[in-house]
Formats: sequence, C-alpha cells, structure tokens
Amino acid sequence: MFPNKRIQSLVGRRVHVEMKGERSVLEGVLTSVDDYLNLHLSGANELENGEKRRLLGSVIVRGNNVVLINPMKE
Amino acid sequence: MFPNKRIQSLVGRRVHVEMKGERSVLEGVLTSVDDYLNLHLSGANELENGEKRRLLGSVIVRGNNVVLINPMKE
Amino acid sequence: MFPNKRIQSLVGRRVHVEMKGERSVLEGVLTSVDDYLNLHLSGANELENGEKRRLLGSVIVRGNNVVLINPMKE
Amino acid sequence: MFPNKRIQSLVGRRVHVEMKGERSVLEGVLTSVDDYLNLHLSGANELENGEKRRLLGSVIVRGNNVVLINPMKE
Amino acid sequence: MFPNKRIQSLVGRRVHVEMKGERSVLEGVLTSVDDYLNLHLSGANELENGEKRRLLGSVIVRGNNVVLINPMKE
Amino acid sequence: MFPNKRIQSLVGRRVHVEMKGERSVLEGVLTSVDDYLNLHLSGANELENGEKRRLLGSVIVRGNNVVLINPMKE
Repeated sequence: MFPNKRIQSLVGRRVHVEMKGERSVLEGVLTSVDDYLNLHLSGANELENGEKRRLLGSVIVRGNNVVLINPMKE
Repeated sequence: MFPNKRIQSLVGRRVHVEMKGERSVLEGVLTSVDDYLNLHLSGANELENGEKRRLLGSVIVRGNNVVLINPMKE
Repeated sequence: MFPNKRIQSLVGRRVHVEMKGERSVLEGVLTSVDDYLNLHLSGANELENGEKRRLLGSVIVRGNNVVLINPMKE
Repeated sequence: MFPNKRIQSLVGRRVHVEMKGERSVLEGVLTSVDDYLNLHLSGANELENGEKRRLLGSVIVRGNNVVLINPMKE
Repeated sequence: MFPNKRIQSLVGRRVHVEMKGERSVLEGVLTSVDDYLNLHLSGANELENGEKRRLLGSVIVRGNNVVLINPMKE
Repeated sequence: MFPNKRIQSLVGRRVHVEMKGERSVLEGVLTSVDDYLNLHLSGANELENGEKRRLLGSVIVRGNNVVLINPMKE
C-alpha cells in the first residue's frame, strides 16, 4: 500500500500530525486528504508538550508542512 | 470534500491563517484561493500573540508557506 | 480573481514582499511575475525594521520563498 | 540505479531517516515509498541523540521533509 | 520579460545569490540556469558579512533554496 | 550545459553536498542523481566544521533539501 493510500485508509480516524517548524502537533479526526497530503481535520486541537493548548476545530493543513502523521490508538 | 474544495467553500468568510516560520498569523476575508492554497486576503491583519500588530489590507499569500487555515467564528 | 491573476494585476506598481526566514522584506516595482510567484523587481530595496538597509536594484526572487506580497499605497 | 529505485530496493528493511528541522531521526521498517519519497514506516521509533525517545508505530512521513535515508545494518 | 527569461539573460555575468537559511551568500559567474532556477555557477565564492569566506569553484545550486539573485555591477 | 546535466556529469566522482538546515555537509561518491537532484551517495560521511563526524555509507538524499553540490578535487 503506497503512502498516499495508507493515509487515505485513515480517513474517519483520529490522527496525530507533526508540523514543520517548532514541532507543533495537531490531533483531530482526518476528514479528508489528497495526494499532496493536504489534510482536512475536524475537532482539531493544537498540542504543546503533549498537552492541549488550543481548540482549532475545522482546519486545513498544507501537505508540504506536514512532517509525519500517525493514527491514534482507539 | 477534499481539502482544496473545503478551502474553496470558505471564500467570502474571515479566516485565520498560520504561516511558516516564526508562527506569524494573518486574519482576513478569503477573497480567492487556488489549488496550491495560494490565498488572496482582503482587509488582512497580521497578529502577534493574538493581538493585531499591523494592517496589511489586500495581500497575496504563497500557499507553500501556509501551515494551516481555519474559518473564524462569525 | 485567482491569486495569480491578482498578483499579475500589480505589475508596474510598487510592492512590499516578505520573504521566508528571518522576515527580510523587499520593496520595489513589480516588473514581472509568473504562476510560481517568481518575481522580477526593479529599484528594489531590502528593509530591516521598516528602514532601508540595502539597495538591490534589479532582483529575481524565487516564488517558493515569498511569504506574502501586498501593494504599496501610492 | 536512480535514487528512487535505490530507495524502493530498501522496502522491507529497517531504515534510518533524518528529517528536516531540529534533526529528528526516525528508524523503522520501510513498508512503502513513492516517487516523492513519501514513506510508510512500521514499528517506527523517534530517536534523540541516538537514543529511542518515543514509539510511533505506523507512521507516514512527507517526502519533502526527509533529508536523508540510509539502510541500517542487519 | 518573465522572471525565468530575466535570469537567463544574466548567463555569462557575475551574479550575487542569497540562499535560504542563515543568509549565506554566493557570488560567481552564472554558467547556466533552468526554469526551476537551479544554477550552475563557476568561480563561485561563499561570502559572509560581505567578505569572501571560501572558494567553491564550480557549484550547482538547488533552485528552491535560492532566495534572490541580482546581477553584479561590472 | 544545464544544471541537471552538469550534475549528471559528476556521477562516479566524489562530491561535497551542503544540506539545508544547520548546514550539515556530506561527502561521498555520487552514484546516481535524478532531475530533482535526489542523490544516491556511496561511502558517504557527514562532516562538521570540516571534520568527519559520522560514516553513513550508502545514503539517499532528498533533492529539495540540497543547498549546493560541488565536485571535490581528486
């Protein structure tokens, strides 16, 4: 399964997303994703040091600024 | 709805845009957007620590330097 | 008007350009622009803290390193 | 063998991946890779100063944020 | 003249190139350039604070890491 | 000779590669390269302040994170 198919298989699940830069981390439900790894997350929170810092809600994330994505345990 | 369609659905609304780098934040009305997430904002302000720092007015933002976009509550 | 058309409408005008990195800022006349937001500026100056730091003259700017562009008041 | 073929030849092996930014390092089994060097790693760990810092498990890595990949000795 | 044509018109001339990151600066003769602004410079030097720091000679520069290019006075 | 042809002409030679970020430097034999400047190096070492820091061996380098490449004297 290619990486873009793997990520599409996560739609509907909660994911953990690490962004470029100062290692900000988002968590939310992956609502959609395209081949550039642009993401639409719903119910997203921004985390800092593993703690929720801010509720973002519905958010679009630009794929090139995503470092890594992994599914959260459910 | 793919991420690029989701963002197009926000045209005409106020959006919150986080840029790459030192986490600068813009807020303004999303006037247009293309598939690269290049944005045209009008009435845009630059924020720092949640406070308005500078009025930019009409501004073009390069999509690859956008980290995330979310709609503002109205 | 899509963002790339909006920027083309600024050709011939003085623009303010914020670059990636340590927030360096350029100002100059936008002589040409392509769909990647590569810019050709003439009579360009580099600014620091709102003050002219260095005259660059004719300069080519790589689009992916442009954060934002806005027209200057005339 | 072109670089993208070389990396495809590593599928199924443990790889060491250096990411952009603060030099974070991942190690895991390369489950799949595409031509953009997007990676799917399984059993992945995040390392800091050569020590395991965190178990990530299954993770998708965005190719443009990969600095280098090398196979681990087995 | 589009930005990529403008830069092609500089082939054979000495250019000043600012790179992404810690604002390293290169100067050399522009031997060739492509549409991605990948550059081949010959007789290139790396500068720091306007002083030559290191002779690089023949060097290939990746376009996406170029911030700006301007021709040197002759 | 376009930059991508110039770099292809270096296959089989030792090259010096400067990477984005904290100016890490690699040296190794250029085994293959593609048009994105993705590189396959063999016998690669990571350098710090001009000294060998770590033997990497066979390594794939992502082109967009390459700042510059120059051939080493032989």
